[in-house]
Amino acid sequence: MASEKEMRNIGEAHPMKSGDGLYSYSNNSYLQRDIINAAKQIVGEAIVESLDILKFSPSTTIRVADLGCSVGPNTFFAMENILEAIELKCQNQGLHSQIPEFQVFFNDHTSNDFNSLFSVLPPNRRYHSAGVPGSFYSRLFPNHSLHIVYSSFSIQWLSRVPKKVEDMSSPAWNKGRIYYVSAADEVVEAYSAQCAEDTARFLQARAQEIADGGLMILIFPARPDGIPHSQFGGNILFDMLGFCLMDMAKKARNMGIVSEEKVDMFNLPVYHMSDQELEAAVERNRCFSIERMERLRPISSTLQSLVSTRDRAQAISFHVRAAMEGLIKAHFDEEILDQLFDSFSKKLEQEYSLIESAGRSAPNLCAVLKRKTMNC
Amino acid sequence: MASEKEMRNIGEAHPMKSGDGLYSYSNNSYLQRDIINAAKQIVGEAIVESLDILKFSPSTTIRVADLGCSVGPNTFFAMENILEAIELKCQNQGLHSQIPEFQVFFNDHTSNDFNSLFSVLPPNRRYHSAGVPGSFYSRLFPNHSLHIVYSSFSIQWLSRVPKKVEDMSSPAWNKGRIYYVSAADEVVEAYSAQCAEDTARFLQARAQEIADGGLMILIFPARPDGIPHSQFGGNILFDMLGFCLMDMAKKARNMGIVSEEKVDMFNLPVYHMSDQELEAAVERNRCFSIERMERLRPISSTLQSLVSTRDRAQAISFHVRAAMEGLIKAHFDEEILDQLFDSFSKKLEQEYSLIESAGRSAPNLCAVLKRKTMNC
Repeated sequence: MASEKEMRNIGEAHPMKSGDGLYSYSNNSYLQRDIINAAKQIVGEAIVESLDILKFSPSTTIRVADLGCSVGPNTFFAMENILEAIELKCQNQGLHSQIPEFQVFFNDHTSNDFNSLFSVLPPNRRYHSAGVPGSFYSRLFPNHSLHIVYSSFSIQWLSRVPKKVEDMSSPAWNKGRIYYVSAADEVVEAYSAQCAEDTARFLQARAQEIADGGLMILIFPARPDGIPHSQFGGNILFDMLGFCLMDMAKKARNMGIVSEEKVDMFNLPVYHMSDQELEAAVERNRCFSIERMERLRPISSTLQSLVSTRDRAQAISFHVRAAMEGLIKAHFDEEILDQLFDSFSKKLEQEYSLIESAGRSAPNLCAVLKRKTMNC
Repeated sequence: MASEKEMRNIGEAHPMKSGDGLYSYSNNSYLQRDIINAAKQIVGEAIVESLDILKFSPSTTIRVADLGCSVGPNTFFAMENILEAIELKCQNQGLHSQIPEFQVFFNDHTSNDFNSLFSVLPPNRRYHSAGVPGSFYSRLFPNHSLHIVYSSFSIQWLSRVPKKVEDMSSPAWNKGRIYYVSAADEVVEAYSAQCAEDTARFLQARAQEIADGGLMILIFPARPDGIPHSQFGGNILFDMLGFCLMDMAKKARNMGIVSEEKVDMFNLPVYHMSDQELEAAVERNRCFSIERMERLRPISSTLQSLVSTRDRAQAISFHVRAAMEGLIKAHFDEEILDQLFDSFSKKLEQEYSLIESAGRSAPNLCAVLKRKTMNC
């Protein structure tokens, strides 16, 4: 078990693009919002059915954390949905006069733009708010201090690229690709092992932080059991992005900015685990029961409302850019961004049918876990 | 009583200068640090003697808040001193095996540079940390959730310049000055009334947030009873700054940037209350007992270690600039800053004997209040 100090250094930072510009996360996270809205009913039902609110003393403040909150506004919608459900639960239990106070902790990496986040906190919010900087693969909160932990579109980010994948002498060296799709088995295994290690650490930290009877709600793109890596939507996107990068490198041979060697040393720290992989991790951890596990189907899809394939492709490209730009800039150079995402957008348009058919399998999962009443 | 939402809008923001440049707060707050160090023993003794640690359940996380924390590093020294004293207290009580977990809340205005603060959090800290944006003249935390509230060099900042002082039709209009020293009685009264209103609001919010038996430690420049406003060190400084501004305006007549009219409309939202004024506010609030009230005398003075009067004058000028630059920039223009603080530095040097003799009366106060066990 790593010391607290070591644990703090775990987890590389991949902040979403801040500000409110064309490629900003706040303007390019509405596809995630469709999914958060799709999860609203499940989250509400899970809280009403499973949150052991009578276990908490009546004077207890209900503490909710959003892990990987980014800069808003999605986090505010998600938190509002949760608090609404808790109030409903209190009313159902006849606790009309005892609606608790709420404290919401917004967590993300230290390099997240908390200044932006704080500047757009809803003025009429019904909760006390706090920002908590640090990797959620380490401890962030005191023992048993949280009642609901929520995280959407965050736990697919690994704490780091698996070491072996960057090691030229390893059979898992991922030459010519930036991701594990269509790579050697050793690469896939290295990614899967890193995810298992990270998920174990994530669950271990949360098991200490969540009060008995509290809930954890995880929303993330997860590969449905039985669907091969290469046919999963999120994976197809990253595979195409890798293709575009490698294509740029080949065309730019001897010209500098993007060399093939540099692409060889670049890998995305993202893994899309399967439902089974999550279940296995929860079982190994032993502190949580799985209350629900459901695929999310958007009620209304902003993407579908766009008329042309070109517009849809561009919207996806902007979304991937808002999430990945910082990472790519750090390894390559800011100069390559426009060209790379232009060519990515074209590639998406050309192969849109692939994306569309992958989307039909409902790539996003909502898992609701409950902290068992036991020392573990 | 204002609604929660109205309360949130109370309090103008006057963030200290961020970054690590020549005029930054982090490089120009070592005079405050001398005082924080001077308070260490008093704070330690007060915690050991007065904190009702046995009232808190043994599994309780001890929650500490620093109100007006700025961007560091002073806040980290202050928090470390407090946690050390709590650990000592636990050991004294024979609670060796039950050293509690700590959670430290760093509060300042929303416009404070929390990104900077988070980036310099001590890596080997023994507490979970959170940033809380908002004015401390409103509610910031859940009921009874804090055990120690600390605030240094912050409560002398008013929530706003008193309205009357900016009203040309009022007898309290403060023409030709930026502060209440050597102003009409009506101006002094308007400032004093604003301070009383703000302090009442501050104590009311904290009375709700601090657990029974918890402590509040306030360190701030306070005018000793019996010393006239015009002879108090902090007041002398601001009076000189006002003189320099007015002098610039007169010299620049018809030349633009600093007009006398603009100076007339500029006032500092700062009031140095007296010991008696604090005592009266605590008495009116009724929820706190005063455990200690002591003047702070620095053990080692970084200012005294500077050899020449010029260096000392410049150090003070830099400190005032780190605190006031944002405010002056917002009303006038960035262009005036260098000239203004140059002339301020010269003025300080010329009249250094005044500053020196005012400093002898130990201008900073440490007040330790304890939350009474009663509904109030």
